[in-house]
Amino acid sequence: PGKRVLIVYAHQEPKSFNGSLLKIAVEELTKQGCSVTVSDLYAMQFEPRATRNDIVAFPMLNNLNCLSLSAQERCSRSCIIRRLIKKLIYDQTAFLKVHSFFPLFWFSMPAILKGWMDRVLVQGFAYDLSKSYDGGLLQDKLSLFSFTTGATKEMYSNGGVSGDVRYVLWPMQHGIMHFCGVKVLEPHICYAPENVSEEKRKEMLTAWTQRLKTLWKEEPIKCSPEWYFK
Amino acid sequence: PGKRVLIVYAHQEPKSFNGSLLKIAVEELTKQGCSVTVSDLYAMQFEPRATRNDIVAFPMLNNLNCLSLSAQERCSRSCIIRRLIKKLIYDQTAFLKVHSFFPLFWFSMPAILKGWMDRVLVQGFAYDLSKSYDGGLLQDKLSLFSFTTGATKEMYSNGGVSGDVRYVLWPMQHGIMHFCGVKVLEPHICYAPENVSEEKRKEMLTAWTQRLKTLWKEEPIKCSPEWYFK
Repeated sequence: PGKRVLIVYAHQEPKSFNGSLLKIAVEELTKQGCSVTVSDLYAMQFEPRATRNDIVAFPMLNNLNCLSLSAQERCSRSCIIRRLIKKLIYDQTAFLKVHSFFPLFWFSMPAILKGWMDRVLVQGFAYDLSKSYDGGLLQDKLSLFSFTTGATKEMYSNGGVSGDVRYVLWPMQHGIMHFCGVKVLEPHICYAPENVSEEKRKEMLTAWTQRLKTLWKEEPIKCSPEWYFK
Repeated sequence: PGKRVLIVYAHQEPKSFNGSLLKIAVEELTKQGCSVTVSDLYAMQFEPRATRNDIVAFPMLNNLNCLSLSAQERCSRSCIIRRLIKKLIYDQTAFLKVHSFFPLFWFSMPAILKGWMDRVLVQGFAYDLSKSYDGGLLQDKLSLFSFTTGATKEMYSNGGVSGDVRYVLWPMQHGIMHFCGVKVLEPHICYAPENVSEEKRKEMLTAWTQRLKTLWKEEPIKCSPEWYFK
């Protein structure tokens, strides 16, 4: 109760299965007394490209020096528009939880969501030169990735053609969230909702509702190579 | 000689280290008699978002049926604009090689390059329902990922904080290229060029020039879990 939740949502169709998962999460978490903010990236027409056009001098980024080449690279990585700073950083430093909802595209996030990570989680806000992983700047926060796949659970198993699904979680959970100091809850994966019966899809939605009821009691995973690659 | 090469380039600064790697590749491959096309994504202002706005009925996509929900999901995944079909598909079905040059952002490609993969490699062109991996539609083609990192080689080693660099290659090489039937050459990784001496950077560029001279004699990697996770 009283927890602040940010949901970053990346599906263009409200009637999609991801849309249903989102709706359930908003309803259930609100019912629990959480304060829920949804960033609906397609509806916002979120700009995923990290371009030089939106570079602004950001006082937290001490090493910003546009004259040297190496700093240009750093600059491009840290670029951010004022609106984003205001909306996404100052407002949300207090968020306790990030949910990301999306369909898996090519073993990874859709570009629009990857762009959110590229542009919002900048140096000085999410991490710093010597502050990363367990020392990252977003400690005491939790994250959870919820996504749908095209392939089946069998394909995403050890020995399946797509390999263990945990392999695709490494860059997202460890490379992004853990890097920033954020703790990671078990992902929520709905396999191939397109190819199952309507009844099975309903079961998947019920399971999600059930999970949300005890979500705050869950322990984060131990985010180290062993979890991913055994 | 006579080989067609497509280079997909994702850095906004021509004077960057990635820009230098690109320049060397264009010069060296052209000198060898290859026909080189560069898709400079930032210069093209490439749209990375897969939105409903650019969905067009694409005759190759037989299952496209915008009325049902599941098809909408499939649709969103296969969306494509006519210009892209013309420029990127029909023109480039004959490409023999895709180079991708980019700085690694968050253990993955920058959003603009991820968007290229999301929107260009559509069903019916790159893969089909029962045609993927060794049976993918882009067989007899080669790919190579060339990227720079922020972290050092030690950090990207087995036991390092960022884990083995091969972990981050799995979604790109196996999940995208291998899935489409494309063979994969060893990646070309320049570690932390921002943080090494000018002399070391020059050595890195020389090593790349040298590699290009015998590139066509290289054997593709064996793209299976063993290569990545031993």
